[in-house]
Amino acid sequence: MPTHHNISIAVIRRLPRYYRFLGELMNVGLQRISSASLSEEMGLTASQIRQDLNCFGGFGQQGYGYNIKELHDQIGVILGLDQPTKAIIIGAGNLGRAVINHMDFGNRGFVLEGIFDQDKKLINQEIKGIKVLDTSEIQSFCNVHKPTVAVLCIPKTATEKISNLLIECGVRGFWNFSHYDINSDVEGVVVENVHMSDSLMTLSYRIKEANLDK
Amino acid sequence: MPTHHNISIAVIRRLPRYYRFLGELMNVGLQRISSASLSEEMGLTASQIRQDLNCFGGFGQQGYGYNIKELHDQIGVILGLDQPTKAIIIGAGNLGRAVINHMDFGNRGFVLEGIFDQDKKLINQEIKGIKVLDTSEIQSFCNVHKPTVAVLCIPKTATEKISNLLIECGVRGFWNFSHYDINSDVEGVVVENVHMSDSLMTLSYRIKEANLDK
Repeated sequence: MPTHHNISIAVIRRLPRYYRFLGELMNVGLQRISSASLSEEMGLTASQIRQDLNCFGGFGQQGYGYNIKELHDQIGVILGLDQPTKAIIIGAGNLGRAVINHMDFGNRGFVLEGIFDQDKKLINQEIKGIKVLDTSEIQSFCNVHKPTVAVLCIPKTATEKISNLLIECGVRGFWNFSHYDINSDVEGVVVENVHMSDSLMTLSYRIKEANLDK
Repeated sequence: MPTHHNISIAVIRRLPRYYRFLGELMNVGLQRISSASLSEEMGLTASQIRQDLNCFGGFGQQGYGYNIKELHDQIGVILGLDQPTKAIIIGAGNLGRAVINHMDFGNRGFVLEGIFDQDKKLINQEIKGIKVLDTSEIQSFCNVHKPTVAVLCIPKTATEKISNLLIECGVRGFWNFSHYDINSDVEGVVVENVHMSDSLMTLSYRIKEANLDK
């Protein structure tokens, strides 16, 4: 994959949305779209869209708009979705199982290779064909399978200890659902925190601002 | 609550982050913070922060910085977190239960009043003290309790029918975990979609851009 340095994280964070929208347009059979129509669909200005996509070398052809499949696939390559990164999940409670069952890791740049929990009732259960292992086996598993990423679906209190262990075991990225802020100052470790409550608070604002509450 | 018109959704979407950060600063006992320090903590420029907070009348005092608790509480009021909106959850599978157990609705502007599922095994189970009801009871429940918001933790295929029913029953806001795009063109209905896969794709990018994958 070509690397693209100095692209702002704000632009990066919009790419998955482009990817999703373009995928939906493909699914309904569309082949080309103008930046004006894309901007209407996505709620961004057309100039914003042109600027964003120019960061990566520009895909559009003046007057013809964008080839949807080409743009979709190229954004997929930029996001690295075609290069599966090995991942494990820590925590197979409701949240862990919801993530395993609902997320399409294979189409999002990852391959899920292991699931860990400390709850004896869950150990040896299979979820999507993967057997849940005891957290005591994390170290030996990592020595053999060398996962790059860990998805943390564990309580806040357990996160510091587990994330330190995982970093020692060679894990270099976290998708973090625990509400603990992993120290992302460690050189060469990236953390993507999921804060679902932010969108819940935004909904609260929008409900009240529009006087929809009775 | 005072309403604040014409504030861009981009600013609104940053307010929950301010709220979270300020809450964490309060928890460690801090009382004041300069916009420079706040900007460092949050990864935004100081001028961005001043601009954002000026949208709401400005809270800082030149040279003294922000009073953390005051700013936190005022953002809470702006977000409407002090005015509980009645909510119900549709879907009590892994995802629904994860949302019920992990989300602090009470401190996020909502009060959870009902849980619905069509799975006979789940009906009459209690989750956080609320009994799961059959989805066939949604209409009669809404007539009595008049919830404003529904949290949708159901498969994509079920969402169109259920969301139309809920709108008929007076629901005016959706926190939508299904991957179905609810038609948000209906007058006076707001939809907050949760796309967890966007942050997973961002993680894919960051892993590969930093060459962390082996």
